[in-house]
Amino acid sequence: MKGFGVHTSMWTMHWDRAGAERTIPSAAAYKMDFIEIALLNTSIVDAEHTRDLLDKYEIQAVCSLGLPEENWASINPEGAAAHLTKAIDKTVEMGGLAVSGVTYGGIGQRTGVPPTQEEYDNVARALDVAAKHAKKCGIALGIEPVNRYENHLLNTGWQAKQLIEKVGSDNIFIHLDTYHMNIEEKGAANGILDAREHLRYIHLSESDRGTPGEGCCDWDEVYGTLAAIGFDGGLAMESFINMPPEVGYGLAVWRPVANSFEEVMDKGLPFLRNKAAQYRLV
Amino acid sequence: MKGFGVHTSMWTMHWDRAGAERTIPSAAAYKMDFIEIALLNTSIVDAEHTRDLLDKYEIQAVCSLGLPEENWASINPEGAAAHLTKAIDKTVEMGGLAVSGVTYGGIGQRTGVPPTQEEYDNVARALDVAAKHAKKCGIALGIEPVNRYENHLLNTGWQAKQLIEKVGSDNIFIHLDTYHMNIEEKGAANGILDAREHLRYIHLSESDRGTPGEGCCDWDEVYGTLAAIGFDGGLAMESFINMPPEVGYGLAVWRPVANSFEEVMDKGLPFLRNKAAQYRLV
Amino acid sequence: MKGFGVHTSMWTMHWDRAGAERTIPSAAAYKMDFIEIALLNTSIVDAEHTRDLLDKYEIQAVCSLGLPEENWASINPEGAAAHLTKAIDKTVEMGGLAVSGVTYGGIGQRTGVPPTQEEYDNVARALDVAAKHAKKCGIALGIEPVNRYENHLLNTGWQAKQLIEKVGSDNIFIHLDTYHMNIEEKGAANGILDAREHLRYIHLSESDRGTPGEGCCDWDEVYGTLAAIGFDGGLAMESFINMPPEVGYGLAVWRPVANSFEEVMDKGLPFLRNKAAQYRLV
Amino acid sequence: MKGFGVHTSMWTMHWDRAGAERTIPSAAAYKMDFIEIALLNTSIVDAEHTRDLLDKYEIQAVCSLGLPEENWASINPEGAAAHLTKAIDKTVEMGGLAVSGVTYGGIGQRTGVPPTQEEYDNVARALDVAAKHAKKCGIALGIEPVNRYENHLLNTGWQAKQLIEKVGSDNIFIHLDTYHMNIEEKGAANGILDAREHLRYIHLSESDRGTPGEGCCDWDEVYGTLAAIGFDGGLAMESFINMPPEVGYGLAVWRPVANSFEEVMDKGLPFLRNKAAQYRLV
Repeated sequence: MKGFGVHTSMWTMHWDRAGAERTIPSAAAYKMDFIEIALLNTSIVDAEHTRDLLDKYEIQAVCSLGLPEENWASINPEGAAAHLTKAIDKTVEMGGLAVSGVTYGGIGQRTGVPPTQEEYDNVARALDVAAKHAKKCGIALGIEPVNRYENHLLNTGWQAKQLIEKVGSDNIFIHLDTYHMNIEEKGAANGILDAREHLRYIHLSESDRGTPGEGCCDWDEVYGTLAAIGFDGGLAMESFINMPPEVGYGLAVWRPVANSFEEVMDKGLPFLRNKAAQYRLV
Repeated sequence: MKGFGVHTSMWTMHWDRAGAERTIPSAAAYKMDFIEIALLNTSIVDAEHTRDLLDKYEIQAVCSLGLPEENWASINPEGAAAHLTKAIDKTVEMGGLAVSGVTYGGIGQRTGVPPTQEEYDNVARALDVAAKHAKKCGIALGIEPVNRYENHLLNTGWQAKQLIEKVGSDNIFIHLDTYHMNIEEKGAANGILDAREHLRYIHLSESDRGTPGEGCCDWDEVYGTLAAIGFDGGLAMESFINMPPEVGYGLAVWRPVANSFEEVMDKGLPFLRNKAAQYRLV
Repeated sequence: MKGFGVHTSMWTMHWDRAGAERTIPSAAAYKMDFIEIALLNTSIVDAEHTRDLLDKYEIQAVCSLGLPEENWASINPEGAAAHLTKAIDKTVEMGGLAVSGVTYGGIGQRTGVPPTQEEYDNVARALDVAAKHAKKCGIALGIEPVNRYENHLLNTGWQAKQLIEKVGSDNIFIHLDTYHMNIEEKGAANGILDAREHLRYIHLSESDRGTPGEGCCDWDEVYGTLAAIGFDGGLAMESFINMPPEVGYGLAVWRPVANSFEEVMDKGLPFLRNKAAQYRLV
Repeated sequence: MKGFGVHTSMWTMHWDRAGAERTIPSAAAYKMDFIEIALLNTSIVDAEHTRDLLDKYEIQAVCSLGLPEENWASINPEGAAAHLTKAIDKTVEMGGLAVSGVTYGGIGQRTGVPPTQEEYDNVARALDVAAKHAKKCGIALGIEPVNRYENHLLNTGWQAKQLIEKVGSDNIFIHLDTYHMNIEEKGAANGILDAREHLRYIHLSESDRGTPGEGCCDWDEVYGTLAAIGFDGGLAMESFINMPPEVGYGLAVWRPVANSFEEVMDKGLPFLRNKAAQYRLV
């Protein structure tokens, strides 16, 4: 996970053959170093087909997911571990480099009360199994803190660091997201500082999940701090403008947050790339 | 609603006699022009007692609320209108100036799909009844757009303006909140610009709802735009550090977002006041 | 003066026939509404030739200058008035809309002590003559506050407003510059707020005078406040990357502040235009 | 040089016995870890007296200066070396930790053309002598890049780094200043990133040299980047509100940039300290 990538939600949330064919050549045309594939449903994925396309277009891949309710790690650690194991296997088949995202629970998971020790113990158990399996397979496992409304377990870089130290695996990394940091961290820099020793991946997502550069995120602070800590992981643009209903609830996107695909890709993406170059991150 | 105020959640979320007695003298000691009382349960309020304290300490009051699920305006406009009518009456008894907040629905209300025309029609009906009643009583009715996770109906200043124009009342105002704007607006200025002709009240709340000045909100942009539009309504600091479980779910506060009451009142409040003075808003 | 323009220093600082021919078609290709011509030396200008090119390419013009030492208004008001009168006449011949810039003194003029009443009286006298002449000719006269190092007389929007009220002419406008504001104002918004009733023109110049979007200026605050005050004057990008020695001393540009013409025009200009569109200023 | 300090211009620019007595107890009352003494004229300094006061109030000291025209290092390297040697000796007598500032030239020094190789060669020669002498005396020598108007030789962190590498001494450090960085660097972070390996001291000075927190500096970006690079040098607040005429020209301060001593010390200083604590820098 190096260089500049993009979440494939810009093209599809259904990673079947048609989705892969729509996405990979287009992402390559935008000179992406990697794509992030939402692995919502492994059964529709033709792994070999994706692998061939990735090879053909010389582009790398990371997979991401949130756990379905029946497999939330805090409640059903065995279910979570099994779910992650399957996702890891599928990612390896595709030639992907990592499985990341809300690997510790659900997008929209909230108990209504603060997290308990038992919940964290269960999460740690599931992640431990998954990280070991991922390591054996030669890929990495990421955890992405999300905002308070999307999950009550991990909201900040600091909490993610605590969890990794609790699991004790050397194969888990922190995956930050500027959209969530803008809600949860005391300045974007602090989230990056707290996560720094485990940080290998970051979602560059505007404060409204719309066109990067047109919201409230302080991109100079984000990039400046990344440069200062010597970040050399993956920079992945994420914008959620086309969401199917099954993920819409958790993400709570009720209106178009950007005017078009082109606005994000032809205004937002150059904005992010120019700024990254200014800070010598790409 | 003029000058600088504070949401009473800093002292209590239970506005009974004890809550009022804990809050009003302390708010006065911080030289507040007004307080915002969370009117979650009118039955515990001793209105005359509050009125006397407000008079004694020469401080004004605004009440705020979210509707309980059985009275969500989009589903039960009559229930909402009745609920708001009761809150307006209680506010008048206390000598308050306005009822505001999520007066159009619930905090945490989400259908999982974008708002429908029917929902907005119902909301408009309820607000129309409530605004007329408030006008007769000599107070004003506010609507506060909140972020996508707390309600799916009104997230932006633009949507609030559309709703007011739909209702057609001259007694409804927009109540913005910097915490929500930081998630929903394309720059804080744009929310203020969209709401400008109806804007009479604003929550000054940090991006994590913690200590103002220690988060991601761009306060210069907020205050500069307020000054530029000639804003002369109420500036109310809001920080949610002590939340009872019944509102905790909707607000999704799982950890202390500030270290203490003192940190908010003795660091955050001077920060906000100094900046407001710099822009000649107080 | 409406819409989006550019200072012609991007192409030339010598406004002779060759300079005009190099500049106007290229500015038109970038779809500029107007150009700002540096009127350093009226004797090399072929006014009719410029006028024809402006007409042919349907582009408008504003002229700008700083006074030469022998004609500094604070010392030699008659000389300043004569100099400005000549510049106004030449601008009218070219079909320009205004003469602006450091019309009250020199770029690099500093006495080493704070401005005196006598200096301001002299400046007011010169500007009064020039403004009356400009009015008779049907064009406007601007004054541009610059930073403390470039002139000691007018550094802020507030001072410019004071001077205009002292002169008492209705034909003088304030011309702000984000580069200077970044040094002199207490937040960009405050400069705009102070100047608001007389503000008709603004230089959009980055904090190092390099590529817009790559420095310290807070463009959201600038544009948000402009939108909030209802600004409808000219927005002129300014970047000083090619300066002849005779102006280099006053401007103190010792190194390339941008890598190339293309960087400014193909990265900086789209950045400024996208942001202006976001705030509905163009 | 550790912790939080202040430039003594807040109390005096004349470091005689009276100046020292006015300053040191007051700085100690503000719980400063160190003060920065402007060593404009060593002949008025009673070094032993200062040393006793520093000891008594348990406060450390750094000295700073700009070279007088007859000793500008680019023109008269021997004169500069002699001047610096004398300042180093006086600093050692006072018990100071370093001599820093515009040790390579004059405040206000500008040739009107870009720096030449010969100028840099001369500067390097002078600094080499001074650094060796400082090392022998057990103190350090700093160089402070300043903005383009105050000196044409060193404007950025990058240039300072180049100069240190040219001199080759291990006893020279970079001393940044947020006021100058706000004019010269492509985002405050970039200046800190470029200087990082040699950075041991920073002036925290607002964009107009007035009250910190009321200007254009992006303090979150400054502090976030300092935290990210592991900065553990001195943080020195600097505000120039009382300047004697002999330094007024170079600094070009023509108006009060803050309303009072109290505004800077009782609003600006707590602002800077709170933010530094937020980023765990103090």
